[in-house]
Amino acid sequence: MTFLQQEIYDQPAAIRRLLQAETGTVATVARAIRDFDPTFVMIAARGTSDNAARYAQYLMGIKTGLPVALATPSVFTLYDAAPTLARALVIGISQSGGSEDIRRVIEGARSQGALTLAITNTPSSPLAETVAYHLYLNAGKEQSVAATKTYTTELTAIAMLVTALTDQATDQETLLALPNWVEQTLHMSDPIASWIERYRYANHIASIGRGYNYCTAFEISLKIKELCYITGEEYSEADFRHGPIAIIQPGFPVIVVAPQGKPLPLQIDLLKKLKEKAAECLVISNVDDLAGYAQKMMPLPDKLPEWISPVCAVIPGQCFAMHLAQAKGHAIDTPEGLQKVTNTV
Amino acid sequence: MTFLQQEIYDQPAAIRRLLQAETGTVATVARAIRDFDPTFVMIAARGTSDNAARYAQYLMGIKTGLPVALATPSVFTLYDAAPTLARALVIGISQSGGSEDIRRVIEGARSQGALTLAITNTPSSPLAETVAYHLYLNAGKEQSVAATKTYTTELTAIAMLVTALTDQATDQETLLALPNWVEQTLHMSDPIASWIERYRYANHIASIGRGYNYCTAFEISLKIKELCYITGEEYSEADFRHGPIAIIQPGFPVIVVAPQGKPLPLQIDLLKKLKEKAAECLVISNVDDLAGYAQKMMPLPDKLPEWISPVCAVIPGQCFAMHLAQAKGHAIDTPEGLQKVTNTV
Repeated sequence: MTFLQQEIYDQPAAIRRLLQAETGTVATVARAIRDFDPTFVMIAARGTSDNAARYAQYLMGIKTGLPVALATPSVFTLYDAAPTLARALVIGISQSGGSEDIRRVIEGARSQGALTLAITNTPSSPLAETVAYHLYLNAGKEQSVAATKTYTTELTAIAMLVTALTDQATDQETLLALPNWVEQTLHMSDPIASWIERYRYANHIASIGRGYNYCTAFEISLKIKELCYITGEEYSEADFRHGPIAIIQPGFPVIVVAPQGKPLPLQIDLLKKLKEKAAECLVISNVDDLAGYAQKMMPLPDKLPEWISPVCAVIPGQCFAMHLAQAKGHAIDTPEGLQKVTNTV
Repeated sequence: MTFLQQEIYDQPAAIRRLLQAETGTVATVARAIRDFDPTFVMIAARGTSDNAARYAQYLMGIKTGLPVALATPSVFTLYDAAPTLARALVIGISQSGGSEDIRRVIEGARSQGALTLAITNTPSSPLAETVAYHLYLNAGKEQSVAATKTYTTELTAIAMLVTALTDQATDQETLLALPNWVEQTLHMSDPIASWIERYRYANHIASIGRGYNYCTAFEISLKIKELCYITGEEYSEADFRHGPIAIIQPGFPVIVVAPQGKPLPLQIDLLKKLKEKAAECLVISNVDDLAGYAQKMMPLPDKLPEWISPVCAVIPGQCFAMHLAQAKGHAIDTPEGLQKVTNTV
């Protein structure tokens, strides 16, 4: 068994460990945020962790009313500039905690008086040691270069933090049920292996999400690029319509992330348009009716609340990318030209 | 002559019109911003205008110290949430001013007391009528579906605003010289037509920028998608290394935007790595030494200051996309499946 497969299947246990181990820390951080009362949030992250930051943009914006900016680390590292962050909550997300550019953003923010938080899987990392507060993912060692369980635990950590801030009992219950939902999603994703060969020679794939699952489209596309070396397009349903939809020719494979939730009518409308263009749609959803638009359905558990659905909805995409890489005969745990820790400046 | 070609070649004149007509309005807006003293900026935009917003993220962050967030309009339109924007400058950018989601963000912000500004090419549009301040692009009617002169005037409007805020005489001189630089870049881009056929059957292209020209990589990639219907990848040099670089196989065409400026050493390092991978690099630069890494050079004027270079650096990309669409025999002004005004919610 590859590390990647082990790590994908370790996700329910990893999320359970995080929920059990860090509830106290999360409560402390939430108190600090309430006391600090930030006017906005800035998040610095790269790659997979940047996709977790996209989730935070929606979850914090919608549930806590905090506007969230994604940082542009170059502003700090290349141009030696320091945007005013004294009233901001500044969060660095990185599994390794080792990327120098992310650390520089946090360091700059802290020296201005910002409230700083790191979310990492490496408590002894430079990033974790730069911040006022650290949330440890408890994901266990991730050995595959393509991140999976550190991504879903990053999403969970963000969900825990927002739930602690909003203090809604139903959201707390949802969080406790999350490991079971993730487990169900893994089982529901087993059939992907049986039909993956259809895509052996696909040389491009688009992924479309909207709202909470905007991040899911990006993360699935990234996994496919990293593991399968094929070009991917990742868009929100709205941005996709503003131009990139022009690339869709008959047979173009498009993964549409469309769980039950607010963007569903828009995603259905997009599926209709893609059907007109004779695209080949792969649909990740718990809405059975969408099967009529889908060459392949990748199902999700029923009654999954939309706000937490990104933790589950990425899983069929992880499995799809893993099986496709296997069908292509690629090295699963060590994709060509990538390292586990990428140190950019 | 197609509308697209006319509009690409109208860019020096359009920018000159904007500089002449709106200096007074820009000064008024700059005063309003100074008086309001925002803690951060939020920009709502889609498609090409979102790439102009990416430029603003860097330019405002570096020159004025204002942190800039790109809005997630769904938070307002789909989830009916309203992040706290009372202390923010909220800017909507849209050539048509017609997209309902952008208008909703601005309306929500204004009702909270935010300072609001629209940058459009349509003064009578719903967006322009929702805001406290409006900056009119003076680009003249843009008839081609693929936006070109509205993009470069959007960039110029942002540059004018930041220059009014920082009040540096050298930056003011740079702005006045901009139409000439744009004109020079257009002339320097003429040879592209003579070698474009090499890419007639390219079915994917990546575009990489960093820092100020992060937006350029995104906008060139969008033009290629809209006009040529081929998949594109657009990344910052740093994000590209965090995974997507795995897709680069021998012969993969990569447009590298690498003008003189702070990110140049990083872009050179990337070019070395791409050469190792036997990628086919097309380099947009005013650094002659880079020719050794390039299958094709797309030159820029000498001594172009980096901060204003995105207005010029996109032009070879616009020409590349236009000529490639011609070589492919596509309808230039009316790409399949796109409309000039895309109304998303």
